[in-house]
Amino acid sequence: MFQAKARADTLKEVVNVISTLVDEAKFTLNAEGLTIRAVDPAHIAMVDLKLGKEAFEEFKADESEIGLDIDKLNQFLKLARADDIVEIKHDEDKRRLNIVVGDITRRMSLIDTTGMSDPKVPSLNLPAKLTVKVDDLVQGIKASETVSDHIALVASQESFEMTCEGDLDQVSWKKSKKDLEELDTPSSVRSLFPLEYFANMLKAVSSGSSVTMFLGNDYPVKVEFKIAGGKGEVSYLLAPRIESGD
Amino acid sequence: MFQAKARADTLKEVVNVISTLVDEAKFTLNAEGLTIRAVDPAHIAMVDLKLGKEAFEEFKADESEIGLDIDKLNQFLKLARADDIVEIKHDEDKRRLNIVVGDITRRMSLIDTTGMSDPKVPSLNLPAKLTVKVDDLVQGIKASETVSDHIALVASQESFEMTCEGDLDQVSWKKSKKDLEELDTPSSVRSLFPLEYFANMLKAVSSGSSVTMFLGNDYPVKVEFKIAGGKGEVSYLLAPRIESGD
Amino acid sequence: MFQAKARADTLKEVVNVISTLVDEAKFTLNAEGLTIRAVDPAHIAMVDLKLGKEAFEEFKADESEIGLDIDKLNQFLKLARADDIVEIKHDEDKRRLNIVVGDITRRMSLIDTTGMSDPKVPSLNLPAKLTVKVDDLVQGIKASETVSDHIALVASQESFEMTCEGDLDQVSWKKSKKDLEELDTPSSVRSLFPLEYFANMLKAVSSGSSVTMFLGNDYPVKVEFKIAGGKGEVSYLLAPRIESGD
Repeated sequence: MFQAKARADTLKEVVNVISTLVDEAKFTLNAEGLTIRAVDPAHIAMVDLKLGKEAFEEFKADESEIGLDIDKLNQFLKLARADDIVEIKHDEDKRRLNIVVGDITRRMSLIDTTGMSDPKVPSLNLPAKLTVKVDDLVQGIKASETVSDHIALVASQESFEMTCEGDLDQVSWKKSKKDLEELDTPSSVRSLFPLEYFANMLKAVSSGSSVTMFLGNDYPVKVEFKIAGGKGEVSYLLAPRIESGD
Repeated sequence: MFQAKARADTLKEVVNVISTLVDEAKFTLNAEGLTIRAVDPAHIAMVDLKLGKEAFEEFKADESEIGLDIDKLNQFLKLARADDIVEIKHDEDKRRLNIVVGDITRRMSLIDTTGMSDPKVPSLNLPAKLTVKVDDLVQGIKASETVSDHIALVASQESFEMTCEGDLDQVSWKKSKKDLEELDTPSSVRSLFPLEYFANMLKAVSSGSSVTMFLGNDYPVKVEFKIAGGKGEVSYLLAPRIESGD
Repeated sequence: MFQAKARADTLKEVVNVISTLVDEAKFTLNAEGLTIRAVDPAHIAMVDLKLGKEAFEEFKADESEIGLDIDKLNQFLKLARADDIVEIKHDEDKRRLNIVVGDITRRMSLIDTTGMSDPKVPSLNLPAKLTVKVDDLVQGIKASETVSDHIALVASQESFEMTCEGDLDQVSWKKSKKDLEELDTPSSVRSLFPLEYFANMLKAVSSGSSVTMFLGNDYPVKVEFKIAGGKGEVSYLLAPRIESGD
């Protein structure tokens, strides 16, 4: 059993995050809320999203899993204004999710979840931790997009820097410790990442909010941020690219 | 002879309606005003538009017919603001329509009307009548567009419903009688229509206005609405699709 | 040596003007300011842009030439708000231009200027002179774009007119002397120009400003306008098309 009501903007936040990695996802439900864990087809990034029942206007669920087409959900939510209340009900007999906004009902066929993977979140030792406004990062990403496909994240005890090296040009974005909300690392660390993944992930974060990043040397980056006004949280892992020696 | 002045937004309303069906149209003029009747190339829909002389700032016309390229007219009107006054004059010697907005004059060659059909409006007995806000309908249409190419319109004594059945998903939009401006039918009726035609027609109706629809069982729908602040009227007929038995 | 600070909108004005003709340009610097002179690949138009040192917040330069990719510069400037201060520094050792906006630094490889031409501004005797608001011209251009690829500029003692003759239609835009800021010609003159070049050039002029044009009979048009709040100036020459006799 799954039956809930939520503000449209809460559900849009969920869809924005998940759709950066996958077209279809398994929603795992229990009495406490909703969890979505997904890995992109190339196995480069993983997202782990938790939305507590307090993020909903109403929420009732037994332990269950439903497979949803994220794109269809996204299309439907575009019809709703941010503060519209969306009603969701799992019709177990017909294997459908019924979603209601105002006068409109969409009955969506569920996707079989048996083929969907159950990704495990790896345990990682990432020594550097920093917190930064997402809008600042997005400016740095935009400046980098025309220069190279990769971006290096570099944290030291004095600053956090993103650098992008192209054949001809170079872009760097740098914040000193005093201009960051938090910066804590025992030593300098640096890892290289695929720019497009990093950029898409940041686009899913609401403007005005902050993200916390955990970094190591040639290690994945973990990006954490809140959704649903703090009632949900996202943890995002992105695999590093190995830097060539030249 | 045809010589007139009109607000640009009045002419834009006319062009928006006609351009949903045809690229070229015959404008029929007489001392009382303008009539345009057009059928789309696939003979699926017909529009019958009447704009009385009181919809113009100035209007003088003998009985005449002029053939116009609707797309060119549309391009030219885009240069004008809603409250700009557009001057129109038929130059019979040069077979042109001269249109003036501000400092700009466009002299448009007329199209030969001899090949253009003179559609007759069929007499139909459509038992159900209802009036509804166009913006509400447009929301229902948008929700349907990704689900199927056809939409069913269903009127009963209690409600008016649009439903769209896809292979996997279903969308329904429903208003009960108390939420409609008008609903009057002796029995339940249902007809199926091509979604794209129905959607394009509704897009031509000004936001905020209402449309009146006449429906039967597997019969055309007639949609009526006002233009030019009530000084013009449009009647739109759309042929049904026969529902397959499965 | 070249080291300067300027408002982003000043640099955007420069880039908008130059990018209508070329992808790469030679910036000629001396203690007094910056000059850019460029001819499009088809040798149909020439631009001569001067930006005095007083248009910059800070400006220091020896006599030098640097070759820049205008498109890259444009991309980078899009990251800046109009009133952001952009820092520019020529790194002569690495043959780069370093540009800083806020936290972001882009190090751009310079382009070799040895292959770039040094266009000479021809001396022309253009009898007609007129000054007109660019926004009025742009309206006339938009009305013409769907009618023909060429536009005629016609000045008489009474009026200035742009006309565009297509196979079927004709557009004319006309201002009488009293509605122009300036109109001075000993006789009527008329020249025909490629519409796309003329349109692109006018799009680079800031909305709200005026342009001064010098015209002759089947002669180039010279268009002059100010940039950087009057602290820079642009002179633009466009070659005529010879009118066919039909």
